[in-house]
Amino acid sequence: MRILGIDPGLATVGFGVVDTEKGSLVPVRHGAITTPAGVSLPLRLLSIGDDLLSLLETFQPDAAAVEELFFSKNVTTGLAVAHGRGVILMTLARRGLPVFEYKPMQVKQAVAGYGGADKRQVMEMVRQLLHLEAVPRPDDAADALALAICHAHVAGSLLGKALRDLV
Amino acid sequence: MRILGIDPGLATVGFGVVDTEKGSLVPVRHGAITTPAGVSLPLRLLSIGDDLLSLLETFQPDAAAVEELFFSKNVTTGLAVAHGRGVILMTLARRGLPVFEYKPMQVKQAVAGYGGADKRQVMEMVRQLLHLEAVPRPDDAADALALAICHAHVAGSLLGKALRDLV
Repeated sequence: MRILGIDPGLATVGFGVVDTEKGSLVPVRHGAITTPAGVSLPLRLLSIGDDLLSLLETFQPDAAAVEELFFSKNVTTGLAVAHGRGVILMTLARRGLPVFEYKPMQVKQAVAGYGGADKRQVMEMVRQLLHLEAVPRPDDAADALALAICHAHVAGSLLGKALRDLV
Repeated sequence: MRILGIDPGLATVGFGVVDTEKGSLVPVRHGAITTPAGVSLPLRLLSIGDDLLSLLETFQPDAAAVEELFFSKNVTTGLAVAHGRGVILMTLARRGLPVFEYKPMQVKQAVAGYGGADKRQVMEMVRQLLHLEAVPRPDDAADALALAICHAHVAGSLLGKALRDLV
């Protein structure tokens, strides 16, 4: 199964593609879609939609894992991210891709073993789990890989449970 | 000029199409795109995008006026609206439509003559300006017509100014 993890945003959308092969995780590609601040909001959103379509075309994932959005300190930033996230979810749905949403705490739990793990610990675990030489850059791409790993774990355990239920 | 006003949302997206003809306003169509709460967020956003594409295809507007989003009481509602608004802005941009964003106060100022007008006053002015027998329903459609009227006024006065500048 090929999983596309997405860390939503407006200025930067992190993405990470991971294959699950016989219980192991294989990194395929990671990076970020970026949009310049000087461009109008509708055109920035359009470029996110177009770039995501290209990614889907290139990598043909089987499922997408997208971070849930919570309000933290900055309401304006949260609103901007929600605009981008709307475009992302719609674009995934247009391609008929199954979309799974995960809270940051679920991702930390799946990747680092506990929901209170800090960012550095999560990134180091992403590096180790994917056998990468360095922590992935930018941070948004590392977050996206963490989301893909999280979904691989959840889907794997659900699959495991379904198989065990069959026995 | 044909203007499409849009009151963004997730459950309900109001729309109103208005033609400006020799300084008068002619209502063309108004209504609402609705999405059921029981459907997943990606599919609700997809249906907003698809329904908006149909409206653009049917009415072929020259410009769109979309309400700016501010945070009021409910952060969760604001986030949901921002998801829908992202899809709306992207869909308008995909069709190459010029998009104009207006604050609620600008709309009240343009339609009712002062920014502190209450909802009922604005709706009654929409009815009068468009020579409608009754206040448009639902409220989201009336808000969308108010946005279209607001843009007609702004565009009209900008055009007027440009023409006066030519003399």
